Amino acid sequence: MFSRVILYGRAHRSNPAVMETLTNICSLLKNMNIEVVSETDTLAFFPTLPVQLLERSEMGKPGDLIIVVGGDGSMLSAARLAIKVNVPVVGVNRGRLGFLTDISPNDLQGQLNALFQNKFVEEQRFLLSARIFENNNIYFEGDALNDVVLMQGDEPHLINFDLFINDEFVCSHRADGLIIATPTGSTAYALSAGGPILEPSLNAIVIVPMMSHRLNSRPIVISGNDKISLHINEMNEHRPRVSCDGHARQLVKPGQTISVHKNAQQLRLLHPKAHNYYEILRKKLGWEHR
Amino acid sequence: MFSRVILYGRAHRSNPAVMETLTNICSLLKNMNIEVVSETDTLAFFPTLPVQLLERSEMGKPGDLIIVVGGDGSMLSAARLAIKVNVPVVGVNRGRLGFLTDISPNDLQGQLNALFQNKFVEEQRFLLSARIFENNNIYFEGDALNDVVLMQGDEPHLINFDLFINDEFVCSHRADGLIIATPTGSTAYALSAGGPILEPSLNAIVIVPMMSHRLNSRPIVISGNDKISLHINEMNEHRPRVSCDGHARQLVKPGQTISVHKNAQQLRLLHPKAHNYYEILRKKLGWEHR
Amino acid sequence: MFSRVILYGRAHRSNPAVMETLTNICSLLKNMNIEVVSETDTLAFFPTLPVQLLERSEMGKPGDLIIVVGGDGSMLSAARLAIKVNVPVVGVNRGRLGFLTDISPNDLQGQLNALFQNKFVEEQRFLLSARIFENNNIYFEGDALNDVVLMQGDEPHLINFDLFINDEFVCSHRADGLIIATPTGSTAYALSAGGPILEPSLNAIVIVPMMSHRLNSRPIVISGNDKISLHINEMNEHRPRVSCDGHARQLVKPGQTISVHKNAQQLRLLHPKAHNYYEILRKKLGWEHR
Amino acid sequence: MFSRVILYGRAHRSNPAVMETLTNICSLLKNMNIEVVSETDTLAFFPTLPVQLLERSEMGKPGDLIIVVGGDGSMLSAARLAIKVNVPVVGVNRGRLGFLTDISPNDLQGQLNALFQNKFVEEQRFLLSARIFENNNIYFEGDALNDVVLMQGDEPHLINFDLFINDEFVCSHRADGLIIATPTGSTAYALSAGGPILEPSLNAIVIVPMMSHRLNSRPIVISGNDKISLHINEMNEHRPRVSCDGHARQLVKPGQTISVHKNAQQLRLLHPKAHNYYEILRKKLGWEHR
Repeated sequence: MFSRVILYGRAHRSNPAVMETLTNICSLLKNMNIEVVSETDTLAFFPTLPVQLLERSEMGKPGDLIIVVGGDGSMLSAARLAIKVNVPVVGVNRGRLGFLTDISPNDLQGQLNALFQNKFVEEQRFLLSARIFENNNIYFEGDALNDVVLMQGDEPHLINFDLFINDEFVCSHRADGLIIATPTGSTAYALSAGGPILEPSLNAIVIVPMMSHRLNSRPIVISGNDKISLHINEMNEHRPRVSCDGHARQLVKPGQTISVHKNAQQLRLLHPKAHNYYEILRKKLGWEHR
Repeated sequence: MFSRVILYGRAHRSNPAVMETLTNICSLLKNMNIEVVSETDTLAFFPTLPVQLLERSEMGKPGDLIIVVGGDGSMLSAARLAIKVNVPVVGVNRGRLGFLTDISPNDLQGQLNALFQNKFVEEQRFLLSARIFENNNIYFEGDALNDVVLMQGDEPHLINFDLFINDEFVCSHRADGLIIATPTGSTAYALSAGGPILEPSLNAIVIVPMMSHRLNSRPIVISGNDKISLHINEMNEHRPRVSCDGHARQLVKPGQTISVHKNAQQLRLLHPKAHNYYEILRKKLGWEHR
Repeated sequence: MFSRVILYGRAHRSNPAVMETLTNICSLLKNMNIEVVSETDTLAFFPTLPVQLLERSEMGKPGDLIIVVGGDGSMLSAARLAIKVNVPVVGVNRGRLGFLTDISPNDLQGQLNALFQNKFVEEQRFLLSARIFENNNIYFEGDALNDVVLMQGDEPHLINFDLFINDEFVCSHRADGLIIATPTGSTAYALSAGGPILEPSLNAIVIVPMMSHRLNSRPIVISGNDKISLHINEMNEHRPRVSCDGHARQLVKPGQTISVHKNAQQLRLLHPKAHNYYEILRKKLGWEHR
Repeated sequence: MFSRVILYGRAHRSNPAVMETLTNICSLLKNMNIEVVSETDTLAFFPTLPVQLLERSEMGKPGDLIIVVGGDGSMLSAARLAIKVNVPVVGVNRGRLGFLTDISPNDLQGQLNALFQNKFVEEQRFLLSARIFENNNIYFEGDALNDVVLMQGDEPHLINFDLFINDEFVCSHRADGLIIATPTGSTAYALSAGGPILEPSLNAIVIVPMMSHRLNSRPIVISGNDKISLHINEMNEHRPRVSCDGHARQLVKPGQTISVHKNAQQLRLLHPKAHNYYEILRKKLGWEHR
């Protein structure tokens, strides 16, 4: 049973309703005698929110639950927090329907009641960890619930790099970049690049080249336990960039290697009982038209 | 340790070298004092082969090994036999490089020696079983190492059908057909239809629509344990066809449902120690050019 | 100014409203003192239609206009008649929005009035002619407003064929088939195969392989004046099929050559003044969602 | 008959052989009593080249010919010069086979002889002009033989923009960018983005979205005479970039419109008599393998 809720929201000019929903949740939870607190940045964005700050070091008690208000983007950053403190998350959707934030703000009372009566489904979703090494020191480190992306840096230039899986050479690429996506991320950026949809519970990673110079390149789906390395060839004259969920970004030097593997800690993502992945897929992808 | 070899080969006008290689294997194995026999159809194709016939009911003793001579097509049909008698298979390649038949006919002696000294790698590859029911009776049943394909029947007409996964509705299709492929089959027909490559050991199935009327259709990768159903809408005016590995073929009546799931019995596929999947992939897909 | 209307419609169980609209048009035109007749097959489908039959040999007088009632499929067959008798056509849409039939049945009176006051736009659309030769004799001949398609015959087998443009060798294909589409047909079957959209007035043809074994195959757009030949290799063990607009169909013998070029006679297609190609495109392709 | 040759080359560390070939051409032409000069930047790159400088204002006399030594990249920049001074160009290929530079350096003597005996084929290739307006003033202007590309600016962000053709609204895009390519450019960057191949003499432009958020987006081929506008929505928080042949680059402000149309002046591109477009296509795209 959940006994404490940690609120998580991000202010965004295109999503003014976040504050309103956070406030509603506060009132409803207080009426239900549930303790409500907030993590640092949420309070910084919404300083008038009538809740106490909870430091990250204090999170992770049994009974903790993170409620994310916003879109899938907010859930991506909340996920990085959630796995560090090992607290389950649930998302209240503001704006367009989300894959990850699927509690509707229209029936908050009913859905919160259900949640606190243990009427929910818990899913495990894994994250990817990306690291760049230089002389055996970690030069960069980032986590991604959706994808680790190798892309062009400040200047638009083709990137020459080699792909290795479990230290075995797979192929050389000459491309605008490459997307390494989790099942969660397979319906995000990787889909635009021609990647397949991976059912969310699959222990698999999809690797999708972007705008490859080689016309017979294809997406590759490998085990979630496989380790991927991208070696940026010395011959590149410009520095490409690596990003995790479009968030942490780092220029990469020619000669460096980006190493990507599954994060040991998984995200505990809660859904309402009525959650139906394929229904969301149909809606998000427009499969109900034509 | 293998003590008896069951030869498997198919005569094909484009592959005249099969007989020669079968004969060579016979001599080499007899010199090594290994018992050599043949399954029925192989002897029917090559009646002068100096070996005894082994009935299917006699196969499956400990120490049995099936050696397939030919291309990946021969391996597909051998696989259906191999899982029924639970005997491992290894392939000697004639003609173009194969994904499944990877012993070279050029160094048969050396490679057979290695095989009989237990220097090989054993992989498990799963097959799909497709069934069509009519009034709760099985109307058709087939196995496929590569793929189960729903395609146009005798007349070229769009097929209207619904896709279900584990009895959950996924989407309606209006398409020329749909490919359900194993990881083994992901580099065959499914790849031509825009499907991704699945690493062979993955417990996953890929579903790829063919020439879909809906432009935002995408391949879906699901767990190998999921059960797929294709419901052929009553409104279809023509009968589509189902095929397993391009082999068993059956016209389907509007209103019928095709059910596809993993066969409980897996194929035991042997490779030489030097076997390297990504190297074969690079060669087969032409990734080494340009 | 139009002085005689030739009605054109096809009965289809999924489109029962065709008869109703044909009847409405008859009444409206008679009230407007416009002569109304019907071509043979329309009368055969709808024998109670209160109009006289007009033989094909009588069509083509100045002032003749063909009004097609139905979907784009009916327009495809009407087009083959229209170019032979050199009469312009206009389409009244029944069922789903069409690219070719764009008069709405909801404001027939208003739109017919506009038409007979010369308030319309006339477009030229070209058709393709396909021919198969055997020993210099024409073995098959067909016209297509949308596309000429080489596809599998009675049995599903890869087709091996060579593509020539203006008698120059372009490439060999090993594929399920190939689509040769006009700009009109570029938004039909060719689009499902990954072809581009060609703006309707373009004097160009697009060639799209289907499920090609070669992963780096791509659609090619050539001049509408180019002549295309497909040579079916002798090595094919089965007969593929050629179809024109999914209508005329012919099995092709290995060794035969299919020759495709623009028909000298163009279709004169009328649209209401408000016709907007890109608006129809947005609606038909679902570009207005998401 | 050509009487004066203007040498054009660019030094590039990956192409050290350019200087050698330029020097060979100098000697051969002097032996043939043909005047040889160089444009400014070529002399700046290769100051020891034994030729006089010819100012741009002096170019364009009857009998002038530009010889480009290098790859297709050098031809792209030479093309921008060539159309301004209205001088035909021919390319001597260094490095990998080129679509545009197709004289082999291995038989320079023979091929130069042929050229000066009028044994060549002349093609017209059009360029695109891109302009950005701000308050009716031209803010940026660039020419492109291959493509005008809208892409991400200094930061990787989705771009929201509207596409207009001849001032008619076509669709809204939410994508990483968009490629507007000539037939010449259709085999370059646009091909990696899923665009079709346009036969080089076609008077057509292809528009290819990059990594579009809308899964049913498709390449559109329009007339070479059409005018394209891309309106960058005010809602974009970051500035995208426009580039011409990957060369002239300009950040674009939200609210600005990029206008693209065919340059009135066409490139006169010479080829050896044996030039065969489809043969080059087969080689460049790897259609001869598998």
